Amino acid sequence: MRGAVLHAPGDVRVEDREDPRILLPTDAVIRLSATCVCGSDLWPYRGVEAVTGPSPMGHEYVGVVQEVGSEVRNVKPGQFVVGSFFASDNTCPICRAGYQSSCVHREPVGGLGAQAEYLRVPLADGTLVATPETPSDDLLPDLLAASDVLGTGWFGAVAAQVGPGRTVAVVGDGAVGLLAVLAAKRFGAERIIAVSRHESRQKLAIHYGATDIVTERGDEGVARIRDLTGGLGAHSVIEAVGTQESMMQAIRSTRPGGHVGYVGVAHGVELPGEELFFSHVHLHGGPAPVRRFLPELIDLIYKREIDPGKVFDLTLPLEQAAEAYRAMDERRAVKVLLTP
Amino acid sequence: MRGAVLHAPGDVRVEDREDPRILLPTDAVIRLSATCVCGSDLWPYRGVEAVTGPSPMGHEYVGVVQEVGSEVRNVKPGQFVVGSFFASDNTCPICRAGYQSSCVHREPVGGLGAQAEYLRVPLADGTLVATPETPSDDLLPDLLAASDVLGTGWFGAVAAQVGPGRTVAVVGDGAVGLLAVLAAKRFGAERIIAVSRHESRQKLAIHYGATDIVTERGDEGVARIRDLTGGLGAHSVIEAVGTQESMMQAIRSTRPGGHVGYVGVAHGVELPGEELFFSHVHLHGGPAPVRRFLPELIDLIYKREIDPGKVFDLTLPLEQAAEAYRAMDERRAVKVLLTP
Repeated sequence: MRGAVLHAPGDVRVEDREDPRILLPTDAVIRLSATCVCGSDLWPYRGVEAVTGPSPMGHEYVGVVQEVGSEVRNVKPGQFVVGSFFASDNTCPICRAGYQSSCVHREPVGGLGAQAEYLRVPLADGTLVATPETPSDDLLPDLLAASDVLGTGWFGAVAAQVGPGRTVAVVGDGAVGLLAVLAAKRFGAERIIAVSRHESRQKLAIHYGATDIVTERGDEGVARIRDLTGGLGAHSVIEAVGTQESMMQAIRSTRPGGHVGYVGVAHGVELPGEELFFSHVHLHGGPAPVRRFLPELIDLIYKREIDPGKVFDLTLPLEQAAEAYRAMDERRAVKVLLTP
Repeated sequence: MRGAVLHAPGDVRVEDREDPRILLPTDAVIRLSATCVCGSDLWPYRGVEAVTGPSPMGHEYVGVVQEVGSEVRNVKPGQFVVGSFFASDNTCPICRAGYQSSCVHREPVGGLGAQAEYLRVPLADGTLVATPETPSDDLLPDLLAASDVLGTGWFGAVAAQVGPGRTVAVVGDGAVGLLAVLAAKRFGAERIIAVSRHESRQKLAIHYGATDIVTERGDEGVARIRDLTGGLGAHSVIEAVGTQESMMQAIRSTRPGGHVGYVGVAHGVELPGEELFFSHVHLHGGPAPVRRFLPELIDLIYKREIDPGKVFDLTLPLEQAAEAYRAMDERRAVKVLLTP
């Protein structure tokens, strides 16, 4: 089959890879209907994360089950399924508490390479969620978004305890930040401040429910958010970048007793303990347990109550994965959908 | 009046200080019935925090109102009152959300020096809570504990979301850690693991409800707590020290999705963002909003349902404050009560 492989920073190639097959009785193999490039794929692409040898890329996927192992009970060949970036058994105490992305048996899907024609999914019963029926093509981008960026933005809003009457700020205008705006709106936030300096992203943020746009970053951004919140800071702040600057902007934009939900994969972040102590914020986040939210998200998508697929502003054939990475790296595209 | 003043690390003197008086119409002046030395007083005493000139010491106090300013409505001369280490208006949005120690008008009481005969308390209406009646002498240590260490341990348990069926670990065996054990027991924790290597403190922890004692610190302590919790870590961990080692022990002892409540004043702590991200813990803490809890704590003390005063294992006259600091610095005493 064909699949995208990162050979070195900036060097993504689509090449022949071995066809995935069932290795364990809990595996499934799916034929991908759509996949995409994640903001977190840009960390190794940019060389911020080390690249050690050729790495199959991609961890976002929707598709049709081709084959299942002998112990798989919950999904069967022919079903359309959505999964996420950690395979989980969905039965251990950590999964049952809603943290499937820290499942005691978790396996990262990233290493298996979902930017491809086929994908082996470990722990299929605990990882994949079948849709009610095979979706029409126009729902594919929405369902693919649920696989990661929607589930991650959603978790950010949950972690930041967004709710009715609350003022929410979202730091980061990538797909996750934009979908955190969507989630905050669904959760009844009264006011949603999006931090963005890109006009097309601002428009999408407003489409998803943002009531205010802040273009400043860092301490200036903090000052603007404080101005907008009576000097107190927001009740809830969602961090969707993962840098030192964005984390500190999120913490400093939150009022004492408020909640920071951070879902940008942290890179080189060091949190000053004393400032955090006196900030009085709640801090929660990490890799989103997307599996927790998938049944609800799929339901909302089928009812056409949410349209997360709008974050895909470019669609390319899988063979052009290299161009997809370039477009996202250069911020010409928010998120690129790849069709195998 | 007489009061304790820190002149330099290790140099505490009781000397004549000016009598406090009403400066603002929202002030009260109280005659102290009891005061004490806090673990956090040891930071400047040990030179870990800089000492810049002679500093009146102490921020824990109970006593009788002597005089109130013209705008004070909630307390009156003759009443016995308990206050805490931040004065608060108890009416601003932050106070109303339960974070009085981040009140927009907060004033630290520490700088006013409660290790003395009299104390000016700013924002008296929002800071002081009158007891139902003048307490008998045997309740004084309990009420004094409520002023800081009980309220702080209590907040640690609240921040760590301690509740029925939960396994709780407490890192730190000072007065705050011991009273966090008491709070965890009150909140219905199923299992309470106290980290302590001192026999007398272990005994008090067990008296307050600890079910297990771990003597190891750092990564060995983490391994022991994981052993005791099926390899997963505790649901709730209360951090009551404030060092890098204790914070990391707390975070690493918590299961994914679990809660760290940290109340040890952070000194030189830097939290690694990537580890925190993948730990999946909730982190909350800071200076305890003791005012939130005082009415409930005073009620429990008057009903003799809790005995937090047991943490005072040495009582000295105020004049011997220097010996009180020495005894705590050398860990000969858990906490020293001073009688003015």
